[in-house]
Amino acid sequence: MEKPVKVGLLGLGVVGTGVLEILADHQEKIEKSIGCPLTVAKALVRPTEDKENLAKKYNLQLVHELTDIIEDPEIDIVVEVMGRIEPAKTFISEALKAGKHVVTANKDLLAQHGSELASLAHEQKRNLYYEASVAGGIPILRTIANSLAADDIQEVLGIVNGTTNYMLTKMVTEQMDYDTALKQAQELGFAESDPTNDVDGIDAAYKMVILSKFAFGMTITMDQVKVKGIRGLSGKDVTAADQLGYTVKLIGSTVKKNGSIAAEVGPVLVPSDHPLASIHNEFNAVFVKSSGIGESMYYGPGAGSRPTATSIVADLMTIVNKIQLGTIGHRFSEYTQPTQLTPPEEIVSKYFLSLKMPDETGQFLQLAEIMANAGAGLEQVVQEKATVENARVVVITHKMSETTMSQIQKDIAEKTNFELLSTMKVMGE
Amino acid sequence: MEKPVKVGLLGLGVVGTGVLEILADHQEKIEKSIGCPLTVAKALVRPTEDKENLAKKYNLQLVHELTDIIEDPEIDIVVEVMGRIEPAKTFISEALKAGKHVVTANKDLLAQHGSELASLAHEQKRNLYYEASVAGGIPILRTIANSLAADDIQEVLGIVNGTTNYMLTKMVTEQMDYDTALKQAQELGFAESDPTNDVDGIDAAYKMVILSKFAFGMTITMDQVKVKGIRGLSGKDVTAADQLGYTVKLIGSTVKKNGSIAAEVGPVLVPSDHPLASIHNEFNAVFVKSSGIGESMYYGPGAGSRPTATSIVADLMTIVNKIQLGTIGHRFSEYTQPTQLTPPEEIVSKYFLSLKMPDETGQFLQLAEIMANAGAGLEQVVQEKATVENARVVVITHKMSETTMSQIQKDIAEKTNFELLSTMKVMGE
Repeated sequence: MEKPVKVGLLGLGVVGTGVLEILADHQEKIEKSIGCPLTVAKALVRPTEDKENLAKKYNLQLVHELTDIIEDPEIDIVVEVMGRIEPAKTFISEALKAGKHVVTANKDLLAQHGSELASLAHEQKRNLYYEASVAGGIPILRTIANSLAADDIQEVLGIVNGTTNYMLTKMVTEQMDYDTALKQAQELGFAESDPTNDVDGIDAAYKMVILSKFAFGMTITMDQVKVKGIRGLSGKDVTAADQLGYTVKLIGSTVKKNGSIAAEVGPVLVPSDHPLASIHNEFNAVFVKSSGIGESMYYGPGAGSRPTATSIVADLMTIVNKIQLGTIGHRFSEYTQPTQLTPPEEIVSKYFLSLKMPDETGQFLQLAEIMANAGAGLEQVVQEKATVENARVVVITHKMSETTMSQIQKDIAEKTNFELLSTMKVMGE
Repeated sequence: MEKPVKVGLLGLGVVGTGVLEILADHQEKIEKSIGCPLTVAKALVRPTEDKENLAKKYNLQLVHELTDIIEDPEIDIVVEVMGRIEPAKTFISEALKAGKHVVTANKDLLAQHGSELASLAHEQKRNLYYEASVAGGIPILRTIANSLAADDIQEVLGIVNGTTNYMLTKMVTEQMDYDTALKQAQELGFAESDPTNDVDGIDAAYKMVILSKFAFGMTITMDQVKVKGIRGLSGKDVTAADQLGYTVKLIGSTVKKNGSIAAEVGPVLVPSDHPLASIHNEFNAVFVKSSGIGESMYYGPGAGSRPTATSIVADLMTIVNKIQLGTIGHRFSEYTQPTQLTPPEEIVSKYFLSLKMPDETGQFLQLAEIMANAGAGLEQVVQEKATVENARVVVITHKMSETTMSQIQKDIAEKTNFELLSTMKVMGE
């Protein structure tokens, strides 16, 4: 048995504690696999945090200064589980400069400064791994980097935010309204008291930035992802979609077309027989369309202390293997292509429109004219029985470009008395 | 750019042709990833096979003798895509002894002689990879070996035979009977003219032997897998299951309990909201329950020329990386545990029973007595309206051991006039 590999933890919250648990619970299998013990020697905590019991239970030393970890020659790998941008970014940079390998689950940081940190790690000939940053327990990054290396990926579609998927599941299966679903997600601990990052799609967008890099080798920025959340999504629209054979899901997508990509997050009508439609509650799934394999999907928990920690420990074991074999310093994703964005006029989709229009003769004709002028066809139309003076009309269009859709929205606003209640993209040919 | 790595193909059928296609279609990405071209230099075919057009198109040499490939110093890796046990086994052994790395998709061979071949590869310090042998395009073996290395797996449940899943999908969704579904699967090319290996569960059993090794480190033999197929499965039972909230699937399972495992293939009633219930047509999926991640599932095509070839090429690229890094000779799955089988009295499950009983007073009491004597409880009972003189009764029991179930079957045969039409396990707590 070789001497143990020692790890320094930056942060000791739920995920940090999960790492301690997984290392302890699966100690025998881990040792057998990597040929040596893997232990957390030190954890960086704030002086105000009371973590003495944890430290005692897992036999580790609590420290309050980064240097106590990165200047310790016994420590080989640093695990960052503090979250947010700073001081995490500085700490990871300092750790890499001090010659430590780094594992992190920090999606916000990687989406915004991933390239910079990956380059720093490469310069320092150190490994930077972050499997847990996308879809927690699902090993999607390693799968794309290794198993799909022989394939040509065309689309990655993900349910990569557990909070909103939980809410949408409740809205579909129990006809719960948006506010009740959010409240319940908060009570169950899925949503934070400020749910902005989840319900506005920002968290999912971070993950699509990282997935775009792995799937297509392209580095995009957050402002290049078109982001729409589910805030205020109407239960009526969810029900209307259901009746038309669709399930509303918050889908993060990154799609390649003629060498350029478009990344987007938004509520999408998914055909009910599509594998993504059956992903319920807080679960995540990533659906990949590629020219070799065809359709594949990877499903599991998107968050949670133990699933996230399991991914972190898998990263740790990969690094230990590489240290032992002397093959360190390779990037997690080596695939690089020039970044090219698809222009809006080439991004095509079917659309769902929900409208309120005065219950008068000739109103529907107006809508039909606007659509015909834009060259857009209608696939399905449902008009509800008029209540008081307004009719609610739900429409699914044939495929059209984002530019055409913008024109239609503009025409509806300028030429009619309709209220455009919502628009969503619709998956399918 | 380094000099090309050259591959020798043993066999040039649909999968072999797929390998040529994938290498050609994704050439640029593959070269970029491994830093050198990867080409097939020679293919072993029978003298009677006419493959001249393929050879010309992909610029490779056709040979008729194994030695032409394994004695060629230019060839680094041999890909076996002939199928069946012999001569594949001899050819792979000879290739390893001649110092070649080997990639194969041969599940029959690996399930029956995998340990022997893996040991030979290890002795020869060569790599033997076979991702494509289980669930074609789904990278399940690598995922278990790498990403789940930090986890403790409890159960692996797979829909790992596309033919039978296609047939069952038709039987459930279109109320097709067994014979019609089989005929359609044959017409579509999913089932061979002799469908024995598929419908009798043998193909799925091969895969469960391989998955047991990866998930639990245990080497079991085919006769240690309890195998039941779907041959002659009654459409009535499929419909009855559907009405009770279950979907019948052919499930391969390998389950750990107190350090021992039980591997099995058979038709199972899967709760309709379980992720495996929504795997339709010829698709495959492997569902993993583990203590760290919890529930995860990997979905994709189980067969087909291009998906299988994509997995093979991913294996080739892994080997090229290892050759370049000088880290060859490790086993595909390093995890090894002493093999221990769970005794039947500890294997528990709910059961579905479908019975025909005379339409006379007191018959049901007899069944209830047999169940009560065995200590088995009933969870759901459906009695159909009697036709002529017989009543058809469908029962779902509470959990009981295989031993108890055997006793009940024996009692029904000896003490009653019932006809036990079928028994299936039922997934769930």
